[in-house]
Amino acid sequence: MRAVLLFKLTSLLSDSSCAYSVCRRKMHILQFSQAGRHSIGVRVDDTNIINLNDFSPDLPTDVCSALCLDHKKLLTEAARCLQSTSSRISVDDVTLHPPITNPGKIIGIGLNYKDHCEEVGKPLPTEPLVFSKFSSCVTGSGEIQIPSATKGLDYECELVVVISKEARNVKEADAMEHVFGYTVANDLTARDMVSATKNGGQFLLAKSMDNFCPLFSDIVTKDEIEDVHNLNISLK
Amino acid sequence: MRAVLLFKLTSLLSDSSCAYSVCRRKMHILQFSQAGRHSIGVRVDDTNIINLNDFSPDLPTDVCSALCLDHKKLLTEAARCLQSTSSRISVDDVTLHPPITNPGKIIGIGLNYKDHCEEVGKPLPTEPLVFSKFSSCVTGSGEIQIPSATKGLDYECELVVVISKEARNVKEADAMEHVFGYTVANDLTARDMVSATKNGGQFLLAKSMDNFCPLFSDIVTKDEIEDVHNLNISLK
Ligand SMILES: [Mg+2]
Ligand SMILES: [Mg+2]
Repeated sequence: MRAVLLFKLTSLLSDSSCAYSVCRRKMHILQFSQAGRHSIGVRVDDTNIINLNDFSPDLPTDVCSALCLDHKKLLTEAARCLQSTSSRISVDDVTLHPPITNPGKIIGIGLNYKDHCEEVGKPLPTEPLVFSKFSSCVTGSGEIQIPSATKGLDYECELVVVISKEARNVKEADAMEHVFGYTVANDLTARDMVSATKNGGQFLLAKSMDNFCPLFSDIVTKDEIEDVHNLNISLK
Repeated sequence: MRAVLLFKLTSLLSDSSCAYSVCRRKMHILQFSQAGRHSIGVRVDDTNIINLNDFSPDLPTDVCSALCLDHKKLLTEAARCLQSTSSRISVDDVTLHPPITNPGKIIGIGLNYKDHCEEVGKPLPTEPLVFSKFSSCVTGSGEIQIPSATKGLDYECELVVVISKEARNVKEADAMEHVFGYTVANDLTARDMVSATKNGGQFLLAKSMDNFCPLFSDIVTKDEIEDVHNLNISLK
């Protein structure tokens, strides 16, 4: 089992005025490379990070593997690392990557913003409309190559829920046990490939072109967010 | 990039009388475990395999990684191994797994059998209808647990094309360069979850429940199949 990204369900009843950065607190996990070496990082502040693999050499060097192996250990080590005197690295001296790569699956929820439903003239869904993007769509912030197959690229900011625990038939009351944290995605869509007559009405192609899931650089741990239903997220 | 499973496109014009075994020739790649150790195997005949990792210790121990690292080396080593005096292992002494696990993506083509289109009363598509299953759906042959969420489980035999080479905007004439080989899947579908009103018409949930992609134990290399458009495949 690998970690899963879930585009937020619960913003159905909120408006989509939304920051490509979730407000920053202490526990931000990220991935970076420096001198060709890929590592997990912990953010100290806006400009500094610590190399978690240097602090805790037996952790995997990618977030997905570390989450699957033992997400509690990842948290514990990140917290210890932040309180240590480990050397701070300037973000200017590294390449930041998306905070998770190769997730086991990416589950998206369609028509999850009230104002988007109004915009496209669709009734509010009574249950979640589930679609997916291929895991290979994940990329970092920055410019992407727009695929030649679309002339109607659309962007939409989404809160991403990072699920680290294998789950099946979960009760609503237990759902948060499975959540590791959050990040923010740009849910890119080839709008000209979504219609009843395109690809048999399936969203997949429109949602899953190369680089169609840029992620913010940090995963924020769940305990850092007081009310996930009341966040402002936005694209810059 | 990880290997990709593609459910056959080209059977559109053939009928779906179809063997959960493709006729056996020399180059069959598989995955098995013995005494808790996971290995890549090469099939010698119906009852014997060779442990490819014992023969070639620097190969990864799973097919997906070996394909991504160097699919030509996997082929070369498998061929050398078959001609060697390496010890034969009875399939009765091992646990066979699906021949590939954690593929980068699983791409399915809907309405790809002429007789299925007639059965469900749909016109033949003029272009492929693309859907996906989650990579975690892959399982081996044998019994599966039917999810409680469906009362309409449907089975359908499909030829699977294993793609080992990263590809983008490929010309039809070059397509076969990207194909490593073939296997056979049972394309399980929760038929009661496919309709215009279920999940917004998206096939994803109906196609992607746990274990909804059982695979035959072997991948047959592409050069073993003379005419892929003229195969009989069937479920047992
Ligand atoms: Mg969206
Ligand atoms: Mg099918």
